[in-house]
Amino acid sequence: MKYQSPAIGNEISCVMHQIKNRVLKNNKKLEGILISGLKKDNFNILGKISHEFNPHGYTITILLSESHAAFHTYPEYNSLFFYLYSCRGSDDGRKTYEFVKKKLKPFYEDFNERAIIVNNKFKSLNI
Amino acid sequence: MKYQSPAIGNEISCVMHQIKNRVLKNNKKLEGILISGLKKDNFNILGKISHEFNPHGYTITILLSESHAAFHTYPEYNSLFFYLYSCRGSDDGRKTYEFVKKKLKPFYEDFNERAIIVNNKFKSLNI
Repeated sequence: MKYQSPAIGNEISCVMHQIKNRVLKNNKKLEGILISGLKKDNFNILGKISHEFNPHGYTITILLSESHAAFHTYPEYNSLFFYLYSCRGSDDGRKTYEFVKKKLKPFYEDFNERAIIVNNKFKSLNI
Repeated sequence: MKYQSPAIGNEISCVMHQIKNRVLKNNKKLEGILISGLKKDNFNILGKISHEFNPHGYTITILLSESHAAFHTYPEYNSLFFYLYSCRGSDDGRKTYEFVKKKLKPFYEDFNERAIIVNNKFKSLNI
């Protein structure tokens, strides 16, 4: 059988605001939260790469069989940017997002989600 | 002086369609194109992680001092998903995007761009 990825992926892009300092500056814990969320959502982790900035700030991307996820922190603003792109279909990755949000407890957030159509045949169907 | 990131980042998320097979299946070349574009746009590369799928498909994320970039290919659909998040301010990363597009020559694309406000103080200003 010829391999075909689902024709639609899902992108979640969210800034979480007013996260407590002790959470936002614990980089090891942040990594654990993101990885736990992805595993609970049955994503397969291929690898990860991260960096700690001076004097503060942390950035991590996690490569998945199903695309990728990332955290970028802004301790100076008490905010964190969360990103997840999944190729498993529309609405996917919500479980990871909900887990992360539950753990980080932002006071409010700027949430965006978008279906990503990777199969151009949809274009002619006006989807 | 206390370090502060710019209060606005920029997210570019684009599916490029109908890329020629010989381009889309040359993973080493794709990596080179993404890295060249980022360097020409003065991004600082901290590291990269990639994976080649069987029977086809390639995925790479590049960690930047200014956040991250990624390619995910769909040879079965002749398409590629390009992502770049930069914390350097609004409209940033266009130079990388234009370079990638020029090299990959998609027949058409689904381009999305969004300012990411990481400083919650903007909320009260209704920006």
